[in-house]
Amino acid sequence: MQTINVGVIGYGYWGPNQVRNFNELDTVNLVAVADQSETQLERVKKRYAHVETVTDYHDLFAMGLDAVAVVTPPATHHAIAMDCLRNGLHVLIEKPITLSSADALDLIRTAEEVGKILMVGHTMEYNPAIREMKAMIDRGVLGDIHYINTVRVNLGLFQSKANAIWDLAPHDISILLYLLGAEPVSANVDGVSCVTDGHVDLAYISLRFPNNIHGHIEVSWLSPRKIRQVTVVGKDRMLFHDDVEPVEKIKVFDKGVDGPPPYTETLEQFHWSYRHGDVTIPYLKWYEPLRRQCEEFVDCIVTGRTPQTDGFNGLRVVNVLEAIDKSLQNGGAEQPVEALTLTHSNGRYINGHSS
Amino acid sequence: MQTINVGVIGYGYWGPNQVRNFNELDTVNLVAVADQSETQLERVKKRYAHVETVTDYHDLFAMGLDAVAVVTPPATHHAIAMDCLRNGLHVLIEKPITLSSADALDLIRTAEEVGKILMVGHTMEYNPAIREMKAMIDRGVLGDIHYINTVRVNLGLFQSKANAIWDLAPHDISILLYLLGAEPVSANVDGVSCVTDGHVDLAYISLRFPNNIHGHIEVSWLSPRKIRQVTVVGKDRMLFHDDVEPVEKIKVFDKGVDGPPPYTETLEQFHWSYRHGDVTIPYLKWYEPLRRQCEEFVDCIVTGRTPQTDGFNGLRVVNVLEAIDKSLQNGGAEQPVEALTLTHSNGRYINGHSS
Amino acid sequence: MQTINVGVIGYGYWGPNQVRNFNELDTVNLVAVADQSETQLERVKKRYAHVETVTDYHDLFAMGLDAVAVVTPPATHHAIAMDCLRNGLHVLIEKPITLSSADALDLIRTAEEVGKILMVGHTMEYNPAIREMKAMIDRGVLGDIHYINTVRVNLGLFQSKANAIWDLAPHDISILLYLLGAEPVSANVDGVSCVTDGHVDLAYISLRFPNNIHGHIEVSWLSPRKIRQVTVVGKDRMLFHDDVEPVEKIKVFDKGVDGPPPYTETLEQFHWSYRHGDVTIPYLKWYEPLRRQCEEFVDCIVTGRTPQTDGFNGLRVVNVLEAIDKSLQNGGAEQPVEALTLTHSNGRYINGHSS
Amino acid sequence: MQTINVGVIGYGYWGPNQVRNFNELDTVNLVAVADQSETQLERVKKRYAHVETVTDYHDLFAMGLDAVAVVTPPATHHAIAMDCLRNGLHVLIEKPITLSSADALDLIRTAEEVGKILMVGHTMEYNPAIREMKAMIDRGVLGDIHYINTVRVNLGLFQSKANAIWDLAPHDISILLYLLGAEPVSANVDGVSCVTDGHVDLAYISLRFPNNIHGHIEVSWLSPRKIRQVTVVGKDRMLFHDDVEPVEKIKVFDKGVDGPPPYTETLEQFHWSYRHGDVTIPYLKWYEPLRRQCEEFVDCIVTGRTPQTDGFNGLRVVNVLEAIDKSLQNGGAEQPVEALTLTHSNGRYINGHSS
Repeated sequence: MQTINVGVIGYGYWGPNQVRNFNELDTVNLVAVADQSETQLERVKKRYAHVETVTDYHDLFAMGLDAVAVVTPPATHHAIAMDCLRNGLHVLIEKPITLSSADALDLIRTAEEVGKILMVGHTMEYNPAIREMKAMIDRGVLGDIHYINTVRVNLGLFQSKANAIWDLAPHDISILLYLLGAEPVSANVDGVSCVTDGHVDLAYISLRFPNNIHGHIEVSWLSPRKIRQVTVVGKDRMLFHDDVEPVEKIKVFDKGVDGPPPYTETLEQFHWSYRHGDVTIPYLKWYEPLRRQCEEFVDCIVTGRTPQTDGFNGLRVVNVLEAIDKSLQNGGAEQPVEALTLTHSNGRYINGHSS
Repeated sequence: MQTINVGVIGYGYWGPNQVRNFNELDTVNLVAVADQSETQLERVKKRYAHVETVTDYHDLFAMGLDAVAVVTPPATHHAIAMDCLRNGLHVLIEKPITLSSADALDLIRTAEEVGKILMVGHTMEYNPAIREMKAMIDRGVLGDIHYINTVRVNLGLFQSKANAIWDLAPHDISILLYLLGAEPVSANVDGVSCVTDGHVDLAYISLRFPNNIHGHIEVSWLSPRKIRQVTVVGKDRMLFHDDVEPVEKIKVFDKGVDGPPPYTETLEQFHWSYRHGDVTIPYLKWYEPLRRQCEEFVDCIVTGRTPQTDGFNGLRVVNVLEAIDKSLQNGGAEQPVEALTLTHSNGRYINGHSS
Repeated sequence: MQTINVGVIGYGYWGPNQVRNFNELDTVNLVAVADQSETQLERVKKRYAHVETVTDYHDLFAMGLDAVAVVTPPATHHAIAMDCLRNGLHVLIEKPITLSSADALDLIRTAEEVGKILMVGHTMEYNPAIREMKAMIDRGVLGDIHYINTVRVNLGLFQSKANAIWDLAPHDISILLYLLGAEPVSANVDGVSCVTDGHVDLAYISLRFPNNIHGHIEVSWLSPRKIRQVTVVGKDRMLFHDDVEPVEKIKVFDKGVDGPPPYTETLEQFHWSYRHGDVTIPYLKWYEPLRRQCEEFVDCIVTGRTPQTDGFNGLRVVNVLEAIDKSLQNGGAEQPVEALTLTHSNGRYINGHSS
Repeated sequence: MQTINVGVIGYGYWGPNQVRNFNELDTVNLVAVADQSETQLERVKKRYAHVETVTDYHDLFAMGLDAVAVVTPPATHHAIAMDCLRNGLHVLIEKPITLSSADALDLIRTAEEVGKILMVGHTMEYNPAIREMKAMIDRGVLGDIHYINTVRVNLGLFQSKANAIWDLAPHDISILLYLLGAEPVSANVDGVSCVTDGHVDLAYISLRFPNNIHGHIEVSWLSPRKIRQVTVVGKDRMLFHDDVEPVEKIKVFDKGVDGPPPYTETLEQFHWSYRHGDVTIPYLKWYEPLRRQCEEFVDCIVTGRTPQTDGFNGLRVVNVLEAIDKSLQNGGAEQPVEALTLTHSNGRYINGHSS
């Protein structure tokens, strides 16, 4: 069994989870953790006495690493990841991959050039509940999809250098793109700044997908309850996912409505017929989504295959976020989401805006 | 004790509840029920053998009634209510009061002319939970309000002559106007037609109120779960109302965030401080909201005072619905909500658009 | 269609529900309501002006009734029901049918003599959720039953002339006997008097059924939450019923454990294998259980068939209550439940203790 | 800051949690983990490369340890703990401390002799929710306590060498003793063996405390749902604790009943008056109970003070379990719980049965 030497850059809010998971993987040798804070590094030393700690991530480059996870603030993603790729490391970046599609594209192309894996931490795609939902949709259990909406709200954590959209919505956009296997054609948003002027902490986002499928995302840093919900409504069945629920994470509703035939104008209420059937809570073999994500990263390094959430996957989410930003700047008006093309080159791919 | 002779027009989905409540009021003599369906009238006869039944509501005018409740489809409200007012009856109309503000204004003016009570069935304003929330907001328990959002979704009942907005949102608009004591300055909507082309069955509505207060309403006929929720977020406390909950209808969250001081640019995440306090579920002495509404109608007839949900209250809600309609016709673009003025005349009032 | 002339005796806490249901049945002509309180009768007159009211139930006997429902305090059941049977009326009695098995037997024999229907209001047997559970058990969905437990607690209503066991447990005993189609062989109870000395307001009851099936009932008048739950654990599947839940009334858990083979002593923990499958919430076509009970009464009168919850059904529950009482008087020691025999006579039946 | 050298014996189901917590404590140097399984020790090495691993716990005695945590099956507790105490180590034992009170007493006396800390892992006493409840009870928020009941059920984990009572009820007994600050005077149990003959997997336990306070414990390995609940009913207020709830762990119900005055026999139902007030969910600053328990152990080692859950605390719980066992052997008959006396000696204490 090949062992991958891994370093983690950033040991703040989320970094400890990455470190814990990489440390427990049999296929990984967790070599070092980098963080600017000595206090944070003290914690690493206490927990993992065998792991090196450095305050300057550049020191990692001399440690014989194969790969790094970049778990720093989004504004630093592009520069650090570029540095790591140029130094011959496979790179896993926390979401959002970058703060612009240009930067994402830059990373994708660089990874292509240097022949390294570039992966983004869209953890929801590794959540067993979301994966089960994807499997049900793909098997046609729900029939044609009418709409998906998601809610991701709670109190905090407010950030100075991001708004609630860039902080929270990447998860939801990632879920929508994954479940639908498609990208939206347009986006608009109603962004509200409750606490700090000009700093969105509550947003309602609409995404229009092909085939008249509608997506809606509610995100907020300022809500009394922690809510993590996804509702998928199909012609044949409906799904409800509650990530806060300890056990009943997915409910499948065998219910729906059959509309009136289109050829008549004399229809009354009773022409709609409703189906009300059983609700099923499918058994999920649970695992930690982040663990699965770490395994995906390592497996792609070992096998050379492309990760499910590769750089292009990261780019697609940023691309949607940029359309939402434009809508925000235009008073909430609907904005097109630029189509992305995918050009293969040298057996791998180069991605780019079609424009 | 004065007894009011009441008739009810319409014994379909909601009418039976009106009939049951009026019948049980000590101050009311329920004289007659009108419905076009003999089958429905048979049910009235079975339950209330002492009540007259007629298929033509005009027959009510010869029965010595003081008042009627109009519980027919919205498209018929204006004509029937006008007929009743002109025949000297006090009128309670189910929501929405009419399908246009012009019609609502017409009824208001006619009621003024004939000196009769005109009231709209915005039942939520008589719900003990909503009333408790209003009392808390007015006492300043929540501090300045940041936003209110509501969700009113379930499967059905699809209608041919209305969309989900006109069917469901009147309740939510009524709640928002009541709780905030204000009208929105603009509205926009993302309306989706899932089942029947061009017939909105899912809508996300944004309402902007003065003082940077934001309102949001989600309504749908096509949702797996019945949800009836109102969230009110204030600077000092937050409220959550769940009308489907049998007991814990309101939760008061003593929590919030204190943003960073505005004078500095160097703030980091930790400058926000969060308050996390107890959650309180206030004891509510429960009563049926519709009962309270019926009592309000009767009491206003007896005393001559203006109902809490008078015609103008009905007009205000229709006025907001019209702005939403305009947004729907303009691809979801934000539309101003016309300001309404209130002109007193002859000790009563005449209302009208300011334009 | 034959119409049955019905009277209701008792318009206190539960009587209004009986009156409302009988009044709405097409097959019933609700003739009169008897109650000692004029105040209560005023309410009847307001709601049902066509119904006679009397303060002395004997006055009903001259009204041409076919049947009565006795909805008075349990201590009066025997005397009133006997009176009614002797006066040629079919009788429906609220639970418990009587306060002793001797009294129940007396009523059963009298009903047999006079050829009238005797029925007890074990409403739970008409609850669609309980009926669905019975159907699943009978179809073998759960496999052999291991145990059933029930919880029926909330705050109040304390009574002076009954304890919490006789007030609440008849429902649970009725459920257990119905679901299992068997009677317990022994009973014991831990009865607690919290508020009034010697007046049980909290009780834990154990019932042992044939085939090593165990029953447990918790009842209380002194609990912070209203709980109405039934758990049925079978070898193959498990059921959970929550009567307070508005929609998800039954959950079927496809899970269980396969114990170690019996022939070895060297077993360790890992020899048990657990099955974890889906949870299903079966769709229930809801109806009001009391409505169904009223229909059963009327239908048995019309057709002459024996009601599902006939007098013998009532006797069996009282018989178990008496064993519980004996346990209570003997410091909670286990007591046998006397076996009941059933002797047919004249095409009908006479029931009695085997002793 | 003094650092304590700690070893952990047993790395099965629960041991990993102990190891993780001790490893993270600044005051602890986690030296070694002992387990008979090499496979399990491999996991330790992967996670904590700096920690020694041994298959024979005797090897720990040469490693300069100050203390050990014994996280092995209960049947081995006495022998291993005795060994460790005799080798001069402070000892923390998982619950139950031993399988007999004689063994517990033996450990207590030995710890006294050798002057070492003996502590039992009654983790519930370090749970912030249970501690908050204890504080409320002690402040008199609930008034006199009427009863406490607990439910601790789910599917699994069946064990060969213990029954569900000894496996699960130690937690509940520990909670009851802690909250009430008293020991029961008698116990009885209804124990049921559903899966394996003679091996209790479902039990209903009644405990009678002084002052007419009643305790009840339901434990099961064979239940469809995981339930962890404690209900405390006092004269003035009632508490409900749900350990499975992620946020609303405690609800305080400001409700109750005032019974009828004792001097009259003519009381009717309406003489009971009910108080219905607000429900409060107190804010809990959450921490991992096991972390707090580890800190308690270390702090007692450093300061020499007696742990909250010392050996005598462990003995008291075993003493109650033995009374329950006797009841089980006597067909569920009520059994006295032997009173324990506490004799101080040499500034410390020696405990023993009063008999």
